Amino acid sequence: MLRTHTCGELRPAQVGQAATLCGWVQKIRDKGSILWIDLRDRYGITQLILEEGAAAQELFQQARTLGREYVVQACGVVVERASKNSHIPTGEVELRVQTLTVLSPAKLPPFLIEDETDGSEDLRMQYRYLDLRRAPMQRNLMLRHRLLQQTRTYLEQQQFIEVETPMLIKSTPEGARDFVVPSRIHPGHFYALPQSPQTFKQLLMVAGFDRYYQLVKCFRDEDLRADRQPEFTQIDCELTFVTQETIFHIFEGLVKHLFQCIKGITLEKFQRLSYAEAIRLYGTDKPDLRVGMPFIELNSLAQGKGFRVFDEAALVVGICVPGGAGYTRKQLEAWTEFVKKPPLGAKGLVYVKYNSDGSIKSSVDKFFSRQQLSAWTKAAQAQPGDMLLIVAGEVQATRQALDALRLKIGDALGLRAKEKFAPLWVVDFPLLQWDAEAQRYTPMHHPFTAPQQEDIPLLEEKPEAVHAHAYDMVINGVELGGGSIRIHEKALQAKMFKVLGLRKEEAKQQFGFLMDAFEYGAPPHGGIALGFDRLCALLGGTDSIRAFIAFPKNNAGRDVMIGAPSTISEAQLNALHII
Amino acid sequence: MLRTHTCGELRPAQVGQAATLCGWVQKIRDKGSILWIDLRDRYGITQLILEEGAAAQELFQQARTLGREYVVQACGVVVERASKNSHIPTGEVELRVQTLTVLSPAKLPPFLIEDETDGSEDLRMQYRYLDLRRAPMQRNLMLRHRLLQQTRTYLEQQQFIEVETPMLIKSTPEGARDFVVPSRIHPGHFYALPQSPQTFKQLLMVAGFDRYYQLVKCFRDEDLRADRQPEFTQIDCELTFVTQETIFHIFEGLVKHLFQCIKGITLEKFQRLSYAEAIRLYGTDKPDLRVGMPFIELNSLAQGKGFRVFDEAALVVGICVPGGAGYTRKQLEAWTEFVKKPPLGAKGLVYVKYNSDGSIKSSVDKFFSRQQLSAWTKAAQAQPGDMLLIVAGEVQATRQALDALRLKIGDALGLRAKEKFAPLWVVDFPLLQWDAEAQRYTPMHHPFTAPQQEDIPLLEEKPEAVHAHAYDMVINGVELGGGSIRIHEKALQAKMFKVLGLRKEEAKQQFGFLMDAFEYGAPPHGGIALGFDRLCALLGGTDSIRAFIAFPKNNAGRDVMIGAPSTISEAQLNALHII
Repeated sequence: MLRTHTCGELRPAQVGQAATLCGWVQKIRDKGSILWIDLRDRYGITQLILEEGAAAQELFQQARTLGREYVVQACGVVVERASKNSHIPTGEVELRVQTLTVLSPAKLPPFLIEDETDGSEDLRMQYRYLDLRRAPMQRNLMLRHRLLQQTRTYLEQQQFIEVETPMLIKSTPEGARDFVVPSRIHPGHFYALPQSPQTFKQLLMVAGFDRYYQLVKCFRDEDLRADRQPEFTQIDCELTFVTQETIFHIFEGLVKHLFQCIKGITLEKFQRLSYAEAIRLYGTDKPDLRVGMPFIELNSLAQGKGFRVFDEAALVVGICVPGGAGYTRKQLEAWTEFVKKPPLGAKGLVYVKYNSDGSIKSSVDKFFSRQQLSAWTKAAQAQPGDMLLIVAGEVQATRQALDALRLKIGDALGLRAKEKFAPLWVVDFPLLQWDAEAQRYTPMHHPFTAPQQEDIPLLEEKPEAVHAHAYDMVINGVELGGGSIRIHEKALQAKMFKVLGLRKEEAKQQFGFLMDAFEYGAPPHGGIALGFDRLCALLGGTDSIRAFIAFPKNNAGRDVMIGAPSTISEAQLNALHII
Repeated sequence: MLRTHTCGELRPAQVGQAATLCGWVQKIRDKGSILWIDLRDRYGITQLILEEGAAAQELFQQARTLGREYVVQACGVVVERASKNSHIPTGEVELRVQTLTVLSPAKLPPFLIEDETDGSEDLRMQYRYLDLRRAPMQRNLMLRHRLLQQTRTYLEQQQFIEVETPMLIKSTPEGARDFVVPSRIHPGHFYALPQSPQTFKQLLMVAGFDRYYQLVKCFRDEDLRADRQPEFTQIDCELTFVTQETIFHIFEGLVKHLFQCIKGITLEKFQRLSYAEAIRLYGTDKPDLRVGMPFIELNSLAQGKGFRVFDEAALVVGICVPGGAGYTRKQLEAWTEFVKKPPLGAKGLVYVKYNSDGSIKSSVDKFFSRQQLSAWTKAAQAQPGDMLLIVAGEVQATRQALDALRLKIGDALGLRAKEKFAPLWVVDFPLLQWDAEAQRYTPMHHPFTAPQQEDIPLLEEKPEAVHAHAYDMVINGVELGGGSIRIHEKALQAKMFKVLGLRKEEAKQQFGFLMDAFEYGAPPHGGIALGFDRLCALLGGTDSIRAFIAFPKNNAGRDVMIGAPSTISEAQLNALHII
């Protein structure tokens, strides 16, 4: 070792001992006759001291040539500090330097290596290794590390076995999002990188492994957004002989465990909402329940009274803003503008102020009587001082607009604090959704999801009415992941493929191995996959998952630091038969 | 849950309780009035019992329709067994069945699901999910799981942080072995899958993470052998401010820890051999030290005495087989045949028997005197009763032949027992090797390996003489992995690329990011990577790594179960710009 201690280790107990430290120069203070250097490594900061009389002039001269981020080795003796620093664990001591060795000089970094940096996102991505030196990034990756540890600890206590599934697999019909890998040995053939280890984990259940887990890289080639990456990490699990309830119990337990041991937060019991309820009450299948303000549908109360905007709308729906009656005209105008502008594009925003004195004031006063408006506030269980905000129009767009407004007001009311967490399970998803473009049904989750037993008869006549044993875990409006009970019978799986429009031969070619497996004693099973990057971001209190990935890609899927993707040689293209 | 207990759980304490088990039918014994079913899951086997009088006739009839590998749910009461089975933990009790539910019937499996199976390798690969039900395979994956756990436990105790590095990276000049991934968004550009996270882990050191580890999938597109897979798992580590000795200490410790806690074996201290010694004494840089019998070079003693085969040889080298004087002519002929046949192709095998009575008998008696032969046995420190076996010819081929023979004799002498382990470090590797085909130097390990300080002046004039700070860990002739102290200075890295024949622009284009990083305060660092699949095989006592991979590829790089690689659609090829 080039050091005897780390920069986070020395304490008064070591006073008088010789010590050698290595680290980065964080700061130099030169008072002429005394010079201090803050030396930094992953473990902390230790102060080095050079004092006239005690240190040779050459040593002073050498120290004065050092710059920020130089890597140095310092040998000396641990001494008690004259003025102690109670903010850092090593603050009671310092190292009286006898020799200094520069292990690596450093150019001026292109941006400040401080908690608050002046580097643009692009610049920080290009010099990621410098960005990662900043304390917030070090903390982020340490948080990720501890989450990895604690996830494993919990799952292993629950009898899960870690099994690694292959990365080089087969492209599937929904393969448009597959990354593929040309085979050199088999011309014209390709591997695909897994979007998830779905079929493999099911086969592990058929093989009798009972409980499987893996913290696994998955890949999806889709157009990127701020919180998406082409490669991402998933907590991937599958269990045998379980019902949905067991899965809820175990994975609610996992998330509670992580919040408890990483953040010291005791999460409340997860709420439950059916998919239908979530849509009806919040306009989304991933509602942020910190906000409250569920939707109130007003069609029956508000239509047929001569107000055309409402009468022509498929949906009239509002929220009740607690204490909202006091909002100014200006505030209301801003919100109206917000729901009208793209991407929301609502026709407008109707308000009904239920004033503290019991009077009611509304933007649609001339169409509705006091009594009629009063019926609305009653339906919304509004209290004096509250305000109703109402949107109307086509069902889906209207819900979307009101959900967005609800979140915006939630922000304004301070209801979306980062340290508050409102977890829930969304259950009873539809099995299928109609893809108007492709003119066929597609799976809401994936084709291996089991329909609910009582709905199976509807599978062929009325597919859209079939509910699935599928569920999502949602916290603060973030879909952390989801799962389902799977089909484990060949006949049902075949019927599912048929409903999805897959011809028998196609189904056999693509998923024959799985349907074969179901014929040799396949246990009932189900599982879940949680987005690990997103979980890190949630616990770390930021919106972007990039801050929790050591070397992320940018919005165009590029690693700007190493310059990937890149061209490859013609010889290589030839060898891979893709030229 | 569909069960109250697993099949490994019931004990006398539960007698009298109701229980529901789920599992696979392992065996049925039908005695007419009594019928037993062995029900199996991952956790064990529990006996179910149906007894006339206690069980309804319908239940008997139902039980008789069951076959092997059916998945059933059995409800009943735990009772004490009449005749106990001390071989299994549940052997004191059985479940008196009240109801049976078939959860999944099973066709007759294509091979026996027993410890010893009748399935061919191909068939077992095709039905891998059935092969994985066999107890030896379950044990193998459990062993792998525990090795994953214990590796992490040890490394985390040693302050290593787990950091995930990207899978979609950039192809490098040595990219012939890269798997590549075409980019949809960037036409004509490709990602590469990592052969190792080498540069990323070095950047993590520059970023100050101090100690990094990852159990990570790596990829190499090369022609496959029995113990190679296109994707494999690596224990990948990097450390800052360390010397070679620290790395030896930590990773010798890791392997000792794994042997201790997984197998209860206390490994002896790792031996050390320089690369040059290993080649001279065993003809290989991964000697199996269980065998002993180091090489004795006989050029000076055996040449110039008129025996042309020796005189014309670049190398005359032998081993001393302890107690070998008694071997029969037939045995000697077999060994001669072995070294002469391809791939070894030696010219022949000379023996010198040092009989117990002190007499010497040799196949080259007529060329050498008793005294001359006696000088050989003395050089070999042979004891009466031993035998020298000698090969001669071109240096490398001769060493290879003798090493192969040495191992073969080691087998014959029972020196290569599976439960005996002889670990060593091979050190002081050459930095470079001459590639005759490409007419240039290539790195013995990789271009980031640091030359030994005192050899740096030789780097340009006499590259082949430069030693590296590189080391391999070898156990029982298996190279488990290796590593090195890395270059951390831009100038030295640039010189290294130059020696390797990389033009300045090429070096900048390929590894500019790393050389840039070295300019901002790069700490001295080094690391190691151990082959995890091979480690599993070593601890599991088999030669093939495939038995420790859940879903391996075959020799042609195919997953015959899922049918990968496969063709993909023209639309997909178009979207990826590779048609």
